[in-house]
Amino acid sequence: MTERLEQQLKFIVEIDKVKRIVRQSKLFSEDRFENDAEHSWHISMMAMILAEHANEPVDVLKVVKMLLIHDLVEIDAGDVIVYLKTDEDRENEQRAAERIFGLLPEDQGREFLALWQEFEERKSPEARFAAAMDRLEPVMQALHRIHEPRQTPRASYEQIIEINSQIGDGAKELWDYAKGEIDRYMEKLK
Amino acid sequence: MTERLEQQLKFIVEIDKVKRIVRQSKLFSEDRFENDAEHSWHISMMAMILAEHANEPVDVLKVVKMLLIHDLVEIDAGDVIVYLKTDEDRENEQRAAERIFGLLPEDQGREFLALWQEFEERKSPEARFAAAMDRLEPVMQALHRIHEPRQTPRASYEQIIEINSQIGDGAKELWDYAKGEIDRYMEKLK
Repeated sequence: MTERLEQQLKFIVEIDKVKRIVRQSKLFSEDRFENDAEHSWHISMMAMILAEHANEPVDVLKVVKMLLIHDLVEIDAGDVIVYLKTDEDRENEQRAAERIFGLLPEDQGREFLALWQEFEERKSPEARFAAAMDRLEPVMQALHRIHEPRQTPRASYEQIIEINSQIGDGAKELWDYAKGEIDRYMEKLK
Repeated sequence: MTERLEQQLKFIVEIDKVKRIVRQSKLFSEDRFENDAEHSWHISMMAMILAEHANEPVDVLKVVKMLLIHDLVEIDAGDVIVYLKTDEDRENEQRAAERIFGLLPEDQGREFLALWQEFEERKSPEARFAAAMDRLEPVMQALHRIHEPRQTPRASYEQIIEINSQIGDGAKELWDYAKGEIDRYMEKLK
C-alpha cells in the first residue's frame, strides 16, 4: 500500500467521529437529536435538489463537497450553537481544520482546508448557497415540530432573523418561504 | 410557494426516514450500528477522497449523487444483507424507488430514478466506482473490529470474496488492499 493511500484511509477512519457529535436539532421523523453526519448527508441532498433556487449559478459538486466536510472541525471543537459562537470558538475550529485535513495527502488537505475556509467566509456563490442549506435544515426541523410543547427560546426574534437571513444571501426564494413560516410561527407564540 | 418547491420540500422531509434504517455494520468510533444516512455520508466522503483510484476516470458529482440517494429505497424496502438479497427484495426496492422519487417534480424524479437504476446495474464507470465505495466501507468497518469477539459469520469466504470483488470492478488498487486484509483476517480465524 502506498503512503498516500494509507493517509487517505486513516482520514476516512478518523472522520467517523463526526457521527458522535450531537446537534441541537431534532430529526423530522423521530424524537431524537440529529448528529453531524446525518445533518451533512441531509443538507447535501438538499443542495442537489434545491440548486435551481440559488441566487447565482453554482457548481453543485463544490457546494456538496463543502457541505459534506463543513462539520468535520466539530470532531475537535464540538458543536456550538450558531447564536453563541465566539472568536475563541472560531480559533478552535481553525486549529481543528488544520489537524484533521492535515491527515490527508498534502494536495488534498490543502484543497479541503481551502473549501472549508471558503464556506466559512461565505464570499463565493457556492459558499453562500451552502450556508443557506446549513441554515434552512434546522429552520425546517423547528417548524416541523411547531405543534410540540415549546422549549425556552435560545434566541430572540431579531437574532433568529439575522442569522437565518443567510438563507436569502444564497437563495432568495427559499428565504421568502422560511421567513414567512418563521413569522407565522412567532405570531402563534404571542 | 410554487408547487415545484412544495414537492421538493416534501421530498426533503420524507427522506429523513433513512436515518432510522439501521445497518448490520458498526461505526469505527463507537460500539453501535450505523444508520443509512451516516453510511451514505461516509461513502460520499470516501468517493471524493478516493476517486483517483477508480479504474476509469469518473464524474465525481455523479458518483456522489448516486451514493447520497442509493439507500433511500430502504425507507420502504428495509435493509437486506447483501448476501441474502432475493428477486423479491429487488422488486420491493424498485417499487420504493418509484414511490419515493415520484414525490419530486417530474424531471428531478426521473433523473434520480435513472441514477439509482444505473447504480444498481453497475454498468457505467461511475456506478462501478460507487458500488466499490458501498462495499469498501463495511469491509473496512469489519476489519477495524478484528480484535473483538467474533460473531458467527453470515457468509462463507467464497461469498465474501465474490460480493466484495465488486470493489475491484471499480477500483483495482483498493481491492488489492481489501482482499489482502480479508485474507489476513481469515488466516487468523483458522
